[in-house]
Amino acid sequence: MLYTSESIERLVEQFAQLPSIGRKTAQRLAMHVLKMPREEVAAFSKALVDVKDNVRYCTICFNITESDPCSICSSQKRNRAIICVVEEPNDVIAVEKTHEFNGLYHVLGGALSPLDGVSPEDLKVKELLSRLQDDTAEIILALSPNVEGEATTLYLGKLLKPFNIKTTRIARGLPIGSDLEFADEATLTRALEGRVAL
Amino acid sequence: MLYTSESIERLVEQFAQLPSIGRKTAQRLAMHVLKMPREEVAAFSKALVDVKDNVRYCTICFNITESDPCSICSSQKRNRAIICVVEEPNDVIAVEKTHEFNGLYHVLGGALSPLDGVSPEDLKVKELLSRLQDDTAEIILALSPNVEGEATTLYLGKLLKPFNIKTTRIARGLPIGSDLEFADEATLTRALEGRVAL
Repeated sequence: MLYTSESIERLVEQFAQLPSIGRKTAQRLAMHVLKMPREEVAAFSKALVDVKDNVRYCTICFNITESDPCSICSSQKRNRAIICVVEEPNDVIAVEKTHEFNGLYHVLGGALSPLDGVSPEDLKVKELLSRLQDDTAEIILALSPNVEGEATTLYLGKLLKPFNIKTTRIARGLPIGSDLEFADEATLTRALEGRVAL
Repeated sequence: MLYTSESIERLVEQFAQLPSIGRKTAQRLAMHVLKMPREEVAAFSKALVDVKDNVRYCTICFNITESDPCSICSSQKRNRAIICVVEEPNDVIAVEKTHEFNGLYHVLGGALSPLDGVSPEDLKVKELLSRLQDDTAEIILALSPNVEGEATTLYLGKLLKPFNIKTTRIARGLPIGSDLEFADEATLTRALEGRVAL
């Protein structure tokens, strides 16, 4: 018998099933929990079920929320004429962190990936089209710069064309703080193509 | 507001306080929990508090256990004449995984580290000495090969000398699967010193 405690073993297994957490890390985390104060562990335990009980998806933008529609969709301070399309709720957090965007969001729930069997019907594409109104001024496609994100960007670009709404995509280029010398060719190509006047 | 859900924010914070988990990973884990089935999340939540409620330390070897004395200390199949001294409960698991050791353990609860204020009184050293009996044939010091582990090994070696019990330490040398070319000097020095006849 490897573990002298079944409870520890069960907790290790629970941690190990999470993405990016291997068995050794799971073991270290379980031992950490063992040393945490009882009330902190109880708070952690409650936070887990609370997420399942309280969090749902906004029926307008499909971001996660506790009230429907979500606080962004129902806010009067946001510019309702601009919609930023992203893949996942995490991407909304990333964009919000910039404090540069004051419009609304639309969370697709993923990106097109024929290999993984993700087709337009699996994403909230239909729901995006039905959100478009006469006063929609711009749709920003903020999808990941990988194969799936590019495919989704091109697909949505084509789909949105007949609506005659300004459709943009976020810039691809050298990340801030990086070194031109170490940039890969694809990124440098995009950076050159996307050059802007000084 | 970054998070549109307070529950998610609380769970992210809970994950982020764990060792080796940064804020981005915590966010990814929280989103994963959101997608897990309700009953799996409930099991995870229960596993956390169960560890706090059920796990304590064996009063003989100070390993974690749910019954006191632990299953190893109370086993009739183990060789009670050999005691393997380790730093943490995780080390017991590591040694058990080898299936090479059939003796008992003694978990010190750390290693000597004057800088961190860990002195012999903070470790289960006194308890180790009081466990020694006439039939104790060998004490294996299986501490980590770092400064703290070395210091603890030397300290215990000196302390155990008057007892006239065979005291050994686990070998330091090249790890299996590694490349001699890339071995650091300290390791290679130990490997040469510890050479054994073919």
